[in-house]
Amino acid sequence: MNKIITIGREFGSGGRELGRRLAEKLQIAYYDQEIITEITKRTALSEEYIRNVEENQPLPLLPITVGRTFSLQFDSLVEQHQTVFLQQSNIIKEMAVKSDCVIVGRCADYVLREFSPLRLFVYADITARIKRCRDKESAKRDWNDRELKRSILTVDKRRAKYYQFYTDQNWGEKKYYDLCINTGGLEIKTVVPAVAALIN
Amino acid sequence: MNKIITIGREFGSGGRELGRRLAEKLQIAYYDQEIITEITKRTALSEEYIRNVEENQPLPLLPITVGRTFSLQFDSLVEQHQTVFLQQSNIIKEMAVKSDCVIVGRCADYVLREFSPLRLFVYADITARIKRCRDKESAKRDWNDRELKRSILTVDKRRAKYYQFYTDQNWGEKKYYDLCINTGGLEIKTVVPAVAALIN
Repeated sequence: MNKIITIGREFGSGGRELGRRLAEKLQIAYYDQEIITEITKRTALSEEYIRNVEENQPLPLLPITVGRTFSLQFDSLVEQHQTVFLQQSNIIKEMAVKSDCVIVGRCADYVLREFSPLRLFVYADITARIKRCRDKESAKRDWNDRELKRSILTVDKRRAKYYQFYTDQNWGEKKYYDLCINTGGLEIKTVVPAVAALIN
Repeated sequence: MNKIITIGREFGSGGRELGRRLAEKLQIAYYDQEIITEITKRTALSEEYIRNVEENQPLPLLPITVGRTFSLQFDSLVEQHQTVFLQQSNIIKEMAVKSDCVIVGRCADYVLREFSPLRLFVYADITARIKRCRDKESAKRDWNDRELKRSILTVDKRRAKYYQFYTDQNWGEKKYYDLCINTGGLEIKTVVPAVAALIN
């Protein structure tokens, strides 16, 4: 069976960077944009729409009490979200069958549970995450710490809901992972060879 | 500053074995029995008593509503428990000053926080822990799984209380550790070189 690494991560903790570097170090595939491109091919949905649905609200935000027309629209939106998840899961499985790989987010640890992946969760304290965001995202340089913190925690909340909805497990609860890595104290470049050492 | 590794661990997860192997691999000190021996030297307490106090009930189990004589006795017991913790903490600090080392349990991650240790927490699902206990502890071979499970969870509960009492932090909550390692899926002999790679 192929060697699969899945990475769940708190926003701003550097999970994506860890994934990319790990794939590089191990010389295995790193799937991210490829998954989105493949979903657009298999559905009539745009890349932008898919990005918005992925790891976002598991259900569209619409009022519960709506008229029949809205209700139908709501049902169709729910269906669309679930189609994206289903397509995404199929693609992830196909990729896992094809070769060793690293997959970040997308409930991949759960979707690929039959492949016995190495399941990582990457996290850090909020101060470290604010610093990382400030260093990386030029667009948010004019945000103050409070705004950045709120934005980070909102993304986390959405990821947690998305994960809980599709897996019935708690996002970030250590029992669902093999290794939880705190990048608040550990440097990613130091973590890469350590995690690589776990892959035989 | 010396390289210090502290290991918190769920009972039966193999944290002590990981500690011993890590110290061996890195050729650094592993402190366990030495700490107890040193406490007996510095107090009038027996080794057996210290073992019982360590990571056990932070407070002696006595009824709250007691007469004056009992109350005095209770106070003196509390004091004794706290003396053991204080002596233990001093000894741990002295050891951390002396050389690189691995220390298992004893709130060492908190006691040595000024030394910026690498703080590990080792855990596993209950099935894996029952299996490990069964493989290791010959004395408990005649216990059934239910008895073993109860015993494991009781030790965990005491460790959690002890840790919470002396550190005001939650035992096993991932934010208090740099790396949380699930030995339910990962083999300890594979984890050792990986963790060693984090120590420069």
